[in-house]
Amino acid sequence: MLPTIAWNNGKVKMIDQRKLPLSEIYVTCSTYTEVAEAIVDMIIRGAPAIGVAAGFGIALAAKEIKTKDINLFYKKMEKVFIEFNNTRPTAVNLFWAIKRMRKAMYNCVGNVEQIKKTLLAEALKIEKEDLEMNKALAKHGSKLIKTKNNVLTYCNTGGLATAGIGTALGVIQHVHNIGKKIHVYTCETRPYLQGARLTTWELNRYKIPFNLITDNMAGYLMSKGKIDLVITGADRIVANGDSANKIGTFTMAVLAKAHKIPFYIAAPSSTVDLSIKTGKDIPIEQRNPKEVTTFLGRQIVQKNVKVINPAFDVTPHEYITAIITEKGVFYPPYTKTLKNAISKSS
Amino acid sequence: MLPTIAWNNGKVKMIDQRKLPLSEIYVTCSTYTEVAEAIVDMIIRGAPAIGVAAGFGIALAAKEIKTKDINLFYKKMEKVFIEFNNTRPTAVNLFWAIKRMRKAMYNCVGNVEQIKKTLLAEALKIEKEDLEMNKALAKHGSKLIKTKNNVLTYCNTGGLATAGIGTALGVIQHVHNIGKKIHVYTCETRPYLQGARLTTWELNRYKIPFNLITDNMAGYLMSKGKIDLVITGADRIVANGDSANKIGTFTMAVLAKAHKIPFYIAAPSSTVDLSIKTGKDIPIEQRNPKEVTTFLGRQIVQKNVKVINPAFDVTPHEYITAIITEKGVFYPPYTKTLKNAISKSS
Repeated sequence: MLPTIAWNNGKVKMIDQRKLPLSEIYVTCSTYTEVAEAIVDMIIRGAPAIGVAAGFGIALAAKEIKTKDINLFYKKMEKVFIEFNNTRPTAVNLFWAIKRMRKAMYNCVGNVEQIKKTLLAEALKIEKEDLEMNKALAKHGSKLIKTKNNVLTYCNTGGLATAGIGTALGVIQHVHNIGKKIHVYTCETRPYLQGARLTTWELNRYKIPFNLITDNMAGYLMSKGKIDLVITGADRIVANGDSANKIGTFTMAVLAKAHKIPFYIAAPSSTVDLSIKTGKDIPIEQRNPKEVTTFLGRQIVQKNVKVINPAFDVTPHEYITAIITEKGVFYPPYTKTLKNAISKSS
Repeated sequence: MLPTIAWNNGKVKMIDQRKLPLSEIYVTCSTYTEVAEAIVDMIIRGAPAIGVAAGFGIALAAKEIKTKDINLFYKKMEKVFIEFNNTRPTAVNLFWAIKRMRKAMYNCVGNVEQIKKTLLAEALKIEKEDLEMNKALAKHGSKLIKTKNNVLTYCNTGGLATAGIGTALGVIQHVHNIGKKIHVYTCETRPYLQGARLTTWELNRYKIPFNLITDNMAGYLMSKGKIDLVITGADRIVANGDSANKIGTFTMAVLAKAHKIPFYIAAPSSTVDLSIKTGKDIPIEQRNPKEVTTFLGRQIVQKNVKVINPAFDVTPHEYITAIITEKGVFYPPYTKTLKNAISKSS
C-alpha cells in the first residue's frame, strides 16, 4: 500500500504530493489546523484521500480539545467541522466524511474521552472502508477492460488519491495484476501535473507499461486509433450522472464521444451526491493563478498576465458510458440507476 | 513591427523565441548552418516565419559559397536546399520558400554574383509579401469577428510567427485596431508553451484584453458559453481542407463543434498544399521527449518515463467552418473552393 496518509502515534502522517515524483518527503501534522492546511495546499489531494484526511483531522482536533464539558466540546468541534468544510469546495467525499464524523460524535452516548475514541475509530473506519471500496470497485471495473487494450487516464486516481489502490487507476492496477496485458496513456493534467508527477510515479511502481502525454495530445492519439477506452475518477457525481472531475476531464469525454470510444467514471459511492440534480449546481473551485503562471516556483509569463484557474469541470451524463462504483457498474439512465444503488445502501 | 527576423548587414538577425517572454535576446546568424539550426531548435518558429528564415538562410548560403564556377555553385546550393528541407517536416511554407528560392536561382541568367543578388532579392520579396499577405488576411478575417466577441486562440500566430502582424493573431490585432471591443482567451499550448510565452507577450504589447488558460480549460469555457469563436493558424492545409496545426488544435475543433461554435483557420495561401489530397498524408514531426519531461531545463518526472511528442495534429475539414487567407475567406467544399483560389493565383 502507498504511504499516502496514516494515523501515526496520535499524529497524521502523509506523503507530500507536491514534491513527488522527484522527492519522497513526509509531512507529520500534529494539529488539525495543519491537516486542514495540507488539504488546502494540496499536500494531500484526490477526492477519497481528502475524505480520509478530514476524518483523521477531525479525530486530531477532538484530541486537541482539553475541556471535559461536553457542550463546550460540541461547540468547539462545530467550529472544526466548519473549518474542514471550507478547505475545498468541489469533492463531495470531504463533506461526506465530515458528516459521518459529526454523526458519530452526536451518536456517542459517553463522555468527552469516549467521544474522542469514537471519533478516532470512525476515522480509521473511513480509511479501512475506502480501502475495501477500492478493491470492490477495481473488480467491477476490470470487466470493462480487455487484454491488449490501450487505456487513457487522466489526473491521478491511484493509491495517492485514496486510502487503497485507487479508483480509475485501481481498476487499471487490478487489470494488470490479473494478467491482462494493457498499455496506459496518462495525461500530464495541467496545471498541477498530477498525471505527469503522480500517476507516472505509481505506474512505474506497479510496472505497468505507459506513455506520458500532454493533455492536448489525447485527440491526436484517438484520431490514430490508439485509445480503446478512457477511465477517470470523479470528485462529485450528481443525481442525473453529471460528474465533476479534474479540469480537462470534460474535454476527454467530448473527444471520446467524437471517436466513439467508451468513457468511464470510477468512484466510490461516497462521491455520489443525490442532493444535487444536475452538474450545473456543482460548485467549482477556482484556484490560485500562480498555479498557471509559474512552474516549479519559476515565473513562465509576464507578471501582469491574467489567468483563470478552475480546478474542475463537469462532464454531462450523456458523455459517460458507465459509472463504476464499489456497488457495481451503472449505466444510463443514471437518474434511476444511481438512485437505486445509493438508496439501497444508506 | 516585431523584431522577429531581419536581414541585417549581410547576416540574419532574429529574436530568440525560446527565451521569451522573460528575456528579449537576439541571435545573429552569420552562416546558413546557424539559420538552419535556429529553425530546428525553434529559436524561430511559426510556419510563415520559418519560410522567411529559409529564404534568408539560402541567401546567406549563396553569399558563403566562394566559387565563381556556376555549376559548382548550383551543386553546392542543391545541398543547401536539402539541408533546409530537412529542418522541419510539417509546415509547408518552408518547402514553398525553398522552391521559390531554387526557381529564382535557376531562372537568373547572370553569373554567380548576379545569382547571389537575385537570391537575396527573392528572400526579401518573400518577407515583404508575407507582411502584405498578413494585412490582407487580417482584413478578410476581421469580418468574421463582432464587437464584444470572446475569441479563443491557440499557439502563437502573431508577429512572432510571421514577418508581419500574423495570421490568426493578426486578424485579432486588426479587429482590435479598428475599434471592435474583443476579449481573447489564449491557450498555453503545451509542451512548448507558445501561447503562454509568446501570444501573451504579443497581446500585452498590443494592449488587447485577454486571459491565459491551460489547454484543458477550453472545454470548460465553451460549456459556460464564454467562447464565441475559435481562430487558429495552420502549418499545412491540403486539397480537401484538412489542416495540420500545433498539437491540440484538433481538440479545440472537436470542442468547438460539440458546442456549435465557429472554428476558423487563418493562414497565407502559401500554406495550402494541393499536392496532398487528405490530412492523413501530412507528415507529423515527432519532437524531443525532453520537451515534455523537463520544464525550463528542470526534470518534472522520473528519468525512465516514456513520452510521445507529436508537434502537430490534423483537423479534418468537417470541423473547419472557414479558411481565411489573403485571397479571401473560403467555405466548404474546400476541394472546390481552395483549388479555384490557389490555381487562379499561380
